[in-house]
Amino acid sequence: MSNSEFLTSSRTEELLPKYRAFLKEHLYPIEKEIIYGSFKAHLPQLNSLRQLAKKEKLFAPHLSESEGGLGLSLFEFAGISEVLGSSPLGHYIFNCQAPDIGNMELMHQFASKELKDQYLKPLQRGEIRSCFAMTEPEHAGSNPKHLSTLAIRDGDHYVINGHKWFTSSADGASFTIVMAVTDPQNPNPYQRASMILVPLDNSGYKLIRNIPIMGDVGEDYMSHGEVSFTDCRVPVSNLIGYEGQGFVLAQERLGPGRIHHCMRWIGICERALDLMCKRAVYRELDPGRPLASQQTIQNWIAECSASIKASRLMVMNTAYQIEKSGAKAAKEDISTIKFFVSDVLMKVLDKAIQVHGGLGITDDTLLSFWYRHERGARIYDGPDEVHKSVLARSILKPYMNHE
Amino acid sequence: MSNSEFLTSSRTEELLPKYRAFLKEHLYPIEKEIIYGSFKAHLPQLNSLRQLAKKEKLFAPHLSESEGGLGLSLFEFAGISEVLGSSPLGHYIFNCQAPDIGNMELMHQFASKELKDQYLKPLQRGEIRSCFAMTEPEHAGSNPKHLSTLAIRDGDHYVINGHKWFTSSADGASFTIVMAVTDPQNPNPYQRASMILVPLDNSGYKLIRNIPIMGDVGEDYMSHGEVSFTDCRVPVSNLIGYEGQGFVLAQERLGPGRIHHCMRWIGICERALDLMCKRAVYRELDPGRPLASQQTIQNWIAECSASIKASRLMVMNTAYQIEKSGAKAAKEDISTIKFFVSDVLMKVLDKAIQVHGGLGITDDTLLSFWYRHERGARIYDGPDEVHKSVLARSILKPYMNHE
Amino acid sequence: MSNSEFLTSSRTEELLPKYRAFLKEHLYPIEKEIIYGSFKAHLPQLNSLRQLAKKEKLFAPHLSESEGGLGLSLFEFAGISEVLGSSPLGHYIFNCQAPDIGNMELMHQFASKELKDQYLKPLQRGEIRSCFAMTEPEHAGSNPKHLSTLAIRDGDHYVINGHKWFTSSADGASFTIVMAVTDPQNPNPYQRASMILVPLDNSGYKLIRNIPIMGDVGEDYMSHGEVSFTDCRVPVSNLIGYEGQGFVLAQERLGPGRIHHCMRWIGICERALDLMCKRAVYRELDPGRPLASQQTIQNWIAECSASIKASRLMVMNTAYQIEKSGAKAAKEDISTIKFFVSDVLMKVLDKAIQVHGGLGITDDTLLSFWYRHERGARIYDGPDEVHKSVLARSILKPYMNHE
Amino acid sequence: MSNSEFLTSSRTEELLPKYRAFLKEHLYPIEKEIIYGSFKAHLPQLNSLRQLAKKEKLFAPHLSESEGGLGLSLFEFAGISEVLGSSPLGHYIFNCQAPDIGNMELMHQFASKELKDQYLKPLQRGEIRSCFAMTEPEHAGSNPKHLSTLAIRDGDHYVINGHKWFTSSADGASFTIVMAVTDPQNPNPYQRASMILVPLDNSGYKLIRNIPIMGDVGEDYMSHGEVSFTDCRVPVSNLIGYEGQGFVLAQERLGPGRIHHCMRWIGICERALDLMCKRAVYRELDPGRPLASQQTIQNWIAECSASIKASRLMVMNTAYQIEKSGAKAAKEDISTIKFFVSDVLMKVLDKAIQVHGGLGITDDTLLSFWYRHERGARIYDGPDEVHKSVLARSILKPYMNHE
Repeated sequence: MSNSEFLTSSRTEELLPKYRAFLKEHLYPIEKEIIYGSFKAHLPQLNSLRQLAKKEKLFAPHLSESEGGLGLSLFEFAGISEVLGSSPLGHYIFNCQAPDIGNMELMHQFASKELKDQYLKPLQRGEIRSCFAMTEPEHAGSNPKHLSTLAIRDGDHYVINGHKWFTSSADGASFTIVMAVTDPQNPNPYQRASMILVPLDNSGYKLIRNIPIMGDVGEDYMSHGEVSFTDCRVPVSNLIGYEGQGFVLAQERLGPGRIHHCMRWIGICERALDLMCKRAVYRELDPGRPLASQQTIQNWIAECSASIKASRLMVMNTAYQIEKSGAKAAKEDISTIKFFVSDVLMKVLDKAIQVHGGLGITDDTLLSFWYRHERGARIYDGPDEVHKSVLARSILKPYMNHE
Repeated sequence: MSNSEFLTSSRTEELLPKYRAFLKEHLYPIEKEIIYGSFKAHLPQLNSLRQLAKKEKLFAPHLSESEGGLGLSLFEFAGISEVLGSSPLGHYIFNCQAPDIGNMELMHQFASKELKDQYLKPLQRGEIRSCFAMTEPEHAGSNPKHLSTLAIRDGDHYVINGHKWFTSSADGASFTIVMAVTDPQNPNPYQRASMILVPLDNSGYKLIRNIPIMGDVGEDYMSHGEVSFTDCRVPVSNLIGYEGQGFVLAQERLGPGRIHHCMRWIGICERALDLMCKRAVYRELDPGRPLASQQTIQNWIAECSASIKASRLMVMNTAYQIEKSGAKAAKEDISTIKFFVSDVLMKVLDKAIQVHGGLGITDDTLLSFWYRHERGARIYDGPDEVHKSVLARSILKPYMNHE
Repeated sequence: MSNSEFLTSSRTEELLPKYRAFLKEHLYPIEKEIIYGSFKAHLPQLNSLRQLAKKEKLFAPHLSESEGGLGLSLFEFAGISEVLGSSPLGHYIFNCQAPDIGNMELMHQFASKELKDQYLKPLQRGEIRSCFAMTEPEHAGSNPKHLSTLAIRDGDHYVINGHKWFTSSADGASFTIVMAVTDPQNPNPYQRASMILVPLDNSGYKLIRNIPIMGDVGEDYMSHGEVSFTDCRVPVSNLIGYEGQGFVLAQERLGPGRIHHCMRWIGICERALDLMCKRAVYRELDPGRPLASQQTIQNWIAECSASIKASRLMVMNTAYQIEKSGAKAAKEDISTIKFFVSDVLMKVLDKAIQVHGGLGITDDTLLSFWYRHERGARIYDGPDEVHKSVLARSILKPYMNHE
Repeated sequence: MSNSEFLTSSRTEELLPKYRAFLKEHLYPIEKEIIYGSFKAHLPQLNSLRQLAKKEKLFAPHLSESEGGLGLSLFEFAGISEVLGSSPLGHYIFNCQAPDIGNMELMHQFASKELKDQYLKPLQRGEIRSCFAMTEPEHAGSNPKHLSTLAIRDGDHYVINGHKWFTSSADGASFTIVMAVTDPQNPNPYQRASMILVPLDNSGYKLIRNIPIMGDVGEDYMSHGEVSFTDCRVPVSNLIGYEGQGFVLAQERLGPGRIHHCMRWIGICERALDLMCKRAVYRELDPGRPLASQQTIQNWIAECSASIKASRLMVMNTAYQIEKSGAKAAKEDISTIKFFVSDVLMKVLDKAIQVHGGLGITDDTLLSFWYRHERGARIYDGPDEVHKSVLARSILKPYMNHE
């Protein structure tokens, strides 16, 4: 895909070919074996690729240079993120994968120096992993103020009790940040919860199971945990930000987080479109009559290409707006890209599968992985339906006052 | 769902509640454990349920009474089939599951008495299983005359060489019917292939692998085999029908086969709609404000209900037309239901998942199983795109002559 | 389109070819001139066609034989109605056009003998026309209990004041039935309004304008009036049914009314599909390469055909249910067909236009007329959105009680 | 809608509020009366607004300053064009309306000095109007090389014979540019036609009729002519470009032309969304419960807003690419915006109508005008289907070579 100054900086113009080459050479050949096999068994191989990424000065593009990264802006990282998204291993290798990247951004801004030294720094170096415990099975995730997990102050400690799931990558992580209610009586429901860092060797914490998601139990980084906190004691100093700030921090965490997700999805889309085109040209209905000659296939390719292009421009523009005016000013755009791009993603994957015919539903291509594991894109970080209502109410607001 | 004389006979009015009760009592409580666990390990349990089905005179509804069945017409069986489709185990328990039912229908009409005695009868009694080897990985399955598998006559035997996949349920089956080219030079490509029965203990046959489909390798009945035939010798008397009749038989096999699939899909849709309604009523956004109060959820429920109703009427009407005038006369309707209902199926499942939120992508409900394993519905037995062209050309034919 | 016993009776099997022949011979050749020209100027021609319809015993198929009709059941009339719908003049010629047919059904059941003699009988004979004044510009038509028009009792008279629009065919009509609030204080909002017959030569009534609809002011039968009632006095005996029954009667009027509309829409769809096929075969992209050879065009034809077929089966089944169990029992089906078929209608018209290219947007075909004048189908008699909510709430009801 | 440096220049940042204010003050109050009434009768009023536009230095934004315009780049004009598109009179008042703007661009580049002096200059000043005669009723407009109109050389003249339609704004125009075959035997079909300027007072030219489009015959600028050329003689010097260059010039004309159309459509979309929001806030289902509180309405507003934003970014980016690298390099993007934005346009109009209920289908709002007169957007300048195939084949090209 051709990019223009509209979408790139001189910095990314220089970096993009390097990332593309790295993925093509090192990740594309091994990714299927790893994602359809045992992630844990491949950790040594994955770690040596991380070392290579460091050596080639491509590691941690989102971190400042002093933190061992490339110092890219959100807008610049977005362009890189699309390329990384083209492999299910892309972000992981360069240590900018969710949920760790969100925790890094959060702790960078709001954690105490002690927490940074002990937890953030090894995380940034890729030596440990982390997770984020917010959603509870008992409550609709789309309502972030509806939480049962409690963190009760007891002297210098919080005592946490609660039940979480979709704590992604909990298996093998060193710590989690948990969203817990610290002030249940606060009349403002948005000020009841706080974020607290919990080391996972704490005896009050338990990984109940890796939730089987669309046929995969998963393991290690590639897993989604159901976890419990039972009289789990952590020092008050493990608080991120201040008490009652949990909801605000969650919003802060989500702003750039949606840029990251959306650009990753666009990377998946481009890869799926590429697979679709390859298959359309290769597969023949009759000798000499490839699928690519069928107008229906052409329609799909054109429609997918158009909506991917639209998605990219919207997400990059949103990244630009966040950089320029902050996440709050860009909140309409942030909601927009969430539902627009997740919808495009699933439609592109669906068409790519259909073009592949029977092969498309096997695990012989990446499409099965994405079809299953990205279905959640329309659900997590706020289901599409919530974002649409939020956006519409924001658009309608000025009209209300006039009438 | 209320049914009317439009859709039922007095026979099915009597039977439907019995099947519904059987499923509710015996299958719904165990189905998730079996489909997400080991099918093979549960064979004893499944077999005892088959015995119970026999005892309650519900076994093999599609077979004549002399064959141990209930003697239902295609139209009547369609109504039952919807109910059975509501559980992934439904058809299996009553021995009317694909691909066996298709093989039973085929052999009933076209197999020799010897083949019937040796293979069909135990199949009808549920003592053995079978499979059907047609699609080849090297060729587009949508073009059934594009085949490489050869069956060369050598005295009283055919020597078969070829490579097939999507030979569903090959693992554990006793025989397959294979589609192979017996007359490669025939100027009419529709007369080149034949159907031959191959016992699977033949040393020339090999189950290469159970193909991993959307995250599941599967096993036994719940699997899709990739198989090979290497100098595989079978007696000429294993021919089904006569030489060169393969394509015609495949069409014969597919006519009622599409009714079976479509009604099963409608059963899945009804179950998914039921799960959707239950979840919408149970899950609260805020205390006292269930999902069911959201207009978007209501729209989905209404739209799903409408398209399920439309599907049922179309499929039942098609079954009626086939019975009345034969599959050939009903071919437009058969193409129509194939693409119409498979599209409805995937849309209903998608909405059901979305209503379930995070739970919808876990393997804690049936939705994940269907979302993954029914995606093929829009591909197998002719992808939707082929059926649309076939239908349109048939509709356009009379116009061509007039102009 | 082939019909079957599923959809026809022996009576309609005999009548359908006669109606088809009548339309083909007498209406298709003149319809464009009339609908795109002056309806009023063609009244003599239209009246002579009505005489011909009477002579051929095809007039008023919905009326009993004693009323001068054919005595068809709702189900049987539905089949005829589809054929009539294929011409914009069809229902009018046979005197079964909205809004008159609704008024006939209503008065037949609920009007006094005097009102029947004076108004219903000439209406049934096609000597006069009528209209129905319900929707008010000031209130959402989707909420039928939200009305401002008042009918205050003054001795033996009602004095009516109010403002209505979408009083279809008011221009040239002899009387209207007006929905007016007679008991504004009634605690039950569904019991506040009544239906009153107002002769249009009443000095308190005024036709303000024929509303320009999608570029057409229209005239006579083909118009939509904005009307006012100013101290409009009518005898209390002009009441239809009893006081406070207005809402109940409106529901009664709408049940069969939706069957009539839906079948008319299906008739339009079939005609549009016919035009589409003709154009696809005739129009060449290059010499020898007609539009019909394009897969996209084939997809549209297949998809339109499928959804028309689904629509017909659903509406006929609903007519059957109404006949069998009454409109109340069939209310889910009635809501379903309203939004399902109006959506199909607009999609089929859209595709038919696209196949016609530039010609499709001219008034040289019927498509422009329907594209414009049937857009209201998704709005009148309750917008689709209302019907979806109504249906969903009805489906969800049993779930609510269980939880 | 907030714009950013992503989409504007300092020049347009300054101009946009002026255009918005001009339209709001001078056009919005009168536009409905003019478009639903007689355009011709309002010419004096329209002309005085053009004088005002000149006085306020807003006239002809697309022309260089030496030609009396503002000297905006294509990218800058695109931003202005969106604002102008919000009124059906916008482009006309500022003399940058199709088809004149296309003729201006064409003649500026390719006409002789004499033709420029005699025809282009008064056109640029808004003293005369022009039209463009290309599409023929006998041939699919989507195949521009399929033409019957002939221009036979006879000494110093061409003698033109042919039949054209969709010659927009022919009524009242001073000249047309006609696409005619000058070299029918040329083996390269793309080199057979030429563009020739024909003054409309030529006796061989005839305006057969203003074609009734969606209920409007139209007149003057707001019309679409069907015209004929019968032994119509024009000097050879009336040729635009050189002989055989017709097809190339048509492509040149269409490149920026599509930017103009697309930005105008986006202007319509924004206005329709604005009407939708106003109506949603104003219209109450029950007292205190406006349409805007309905989730379905919110969904539509959010989805419309998202797709308008996507459209704008894509079109602006395409304008930027054309400026930077030429129309040829941007041809994929040009095809993309054509089908993407025309689809968005019709969907937004459809939702806006639905939100307006009955009012939406009357001519009491602008929506009826656009719904009818912009339906052609998916047809003219190449139907969507052609653009999709063109785009897909371009995307697939590199894959073909590799396989």
